[in-house]
Amino acid sequence: MSVDPNLAQRLLAGDRRALARAISLVENDDPAGWALVREVYPQTGKSAVVGVTGAPGSGKSTLIGGLVKNRRAADRSVAVLSIDPTSPFTQGALLGDRIRLTEHFLDPGVFIRSMANRGALGGLSEASLQAALLMDAAGRDDVFLETVGVGQAEVDIIDHADTVLLVLMPGGGDSVQALKAGIMEIPDIIVVNKADHPLTQTMVREIRGVLSLAPQGSWKVPILQTEAVDGRGIDELMDKLIEHRAHIEQEGTLSERRRNNLRSEVLALATHRVRRDLEQRLARGDGFEKLIDDVVARRLDPASAAAAILGDDVP
Amino acid sequence: MSVDPNLAQRLLAGDRRALARAISLVENDDPAGWALVREVYPQTGKSAVVGVTGAPGSGKSTLIGGLVKNRRAADRSVAVLSIDPTSPFTQGALLGDRIRLTEHFLDPGVFIRSMANRGALGGLSEASLQAALLMDAAGRDDVFLETVGVGQAEVDIIDHADTVLLVLMPGGGDSVQALKAGIMEIPDIIVVNKADHPLTQTMVREIRGVLSLAPQGSWKVPILQTEAVDGRGIDELMDKLIEHRAHIEQEGTLSERRRNNLRSEVLALATHRVRRDLEQRLARGDGFEKLIDDVVARRLDPASAAAAILGDDVP
Repeated sequence: MSVDPNLAQRLLAGDRRALARAISLVENDDPAGWALVREVYPQTGKSAVVGVTGAPGSGKSTLIGGLVKNRRAADRSVAVLSIDPTSPFTQGALLGDRIRLTEHFLDPGVFIRSMANRGALGGLSEASLQAALLMDAAGRDDVFLETVGVGQAEVDIIDHADTVLLVLMPGGGDSVQALKAGIMEIPDIIVVNKADHPLTQTMVREIRGVLSLAPQGSWKVPILQTEAVDGRGIDELMDKLIEHRAHIEQEGTLSERRRNNLRSEVLALATHRVRRDLEQRLARGDGFEKLIDDVVARRLDPASAAAAILGDDVP
Repeated sequence: MSVDPNLAQRLLAGDRRALARAISLVENDDPAGWALVREVYPQTGKSAVVGVTGAPGSGKSTLIGGLVKNRRAADRSVAVLSIDPTSPFTQGALLGDRIRLTEHFLDPGVFIRSMANRGALGGLSEASLQAALLMDAAGRDDVFLETVGVGQAEVDIIDHADTVLLVLMPGGGDSVQALKAGIMEIPDIIVVNKADHPLTQTMVREIRGVLSLAPQGSWKVPILQTEAVDGRGIDELMDKLIEHRAHIEQEGTLSERRRNNLRSEVLALATHRVRRDLEQRLARGDGFEKLIDDVVARRLDPASAAAAILGDDVP
């Protein structure tokens, strides 16, 4: 595949087609894609990056659709990166959702891209981080990252956000329990979507209880209520997102947060690369199934088999 | 730490203290622990291993308590390995739960061990797999693995189970949505615990809907209802667990399942080892923070920093 020598220039100028092309390159693990990110990286760090996470069915995509509309009304350019396999941005959504979102497809100020999960080799995680950087380099004022909040790849991409928004739905008590148990990290903003549901107030009270027990920083995590389908509560939510960003900028924690995020990203990229090398080595060699035979027959224990694969001495 | 030369022998004879000691060795990453697993591995594969997963607060521990009681009444020896940080087996539980579980602590036929999450370096996952093998080698008839079902380590250990039980609670709709979306794998048995809740029947109907859409194997996933606190439904649940195991044995899928499980374990162990080596290398060198400085200053992109860490040429 030949790569347009002016791709970086066009990307930096905000050309949508160049952005789409660049993301395809990183998605296809094309060395030209990696070189491109390297070239444009000095121009990144300008977008306001919001991570939107939540269980499937909580209405994240519809909510993002509403936020995008708000941003466009404020004349800001937007990019959406969805790595949620259940998202209508990606596939398999209800027709209604698709129709609500298509209005944005026609707007050149909105760039939407989805990435499907391509196995567990870490490829998705690497590609999504690079894609987020490309959107930033292309000068998008706001970048929304949509993730389902389960699994390694999704956790990695949320690490890229300046502001993390958790979307809950009434009756989705498992997420509240996970927050309570400290298994899920406390986000910056919590929204209870589908707030016309009779269980909404119960859920809000529960979340308030959880937050009251969490260590208090200088930012008080707000709990908002939205009905994304009707656009209710969206503008208030966007105001809070802007307020959070202003807060971390003012406090100086944005740069600290970004430093931590970038450290996590570098580690994640290194780990994924190592894992991929390992998987490739196994895919090439036919000795692996022979080793597994020995493990199944209880002649060789799993740890020794792992050491053998790595070419280490048995520990 | 000097290791009893007869530890393997005592472990294989079913000595509880030897089992506890052996697990501590693997937990402390002591080479003697790894050598021990290697030595006793040929004697493993005899336990019936049940993985119990579900959101925090769904009542997994109380349910396991009930199942243990049932197994003891049938005169079977039991081991419980909990790697759920929210479990009362581990810590931080309600006093009521603790009291209900302590009855088992006095019974020599019951061995309970918990492992806390010790960072994300993969150490927990490695240790828990080894611990499960040691319980098996110690001749425990039934092994229950309790996990919260979120995060990499927990996913790894559930791969070790012959039968996977998912515990849901009414109002915990996020898990049902995750099943529906195909993000959570369909387990072998589903139980709705706290079934005295008014939302139970709604949830059962929803799950039935999800299962009707899933590809049908020869095993029809049953949906049971329990009230673990009162012991209601526990015997029926145990009957189903036994029935599932008989089914996979009869069908010949147990050996296939174990082969797949062991393959996953070997890969997981190899990956964790590689990642740990990487973390250790970074912890030793002071060049890492310098690299991150460059990334933060946008002089070096994350992927190039990752390559530099690994000593690779820039891609």
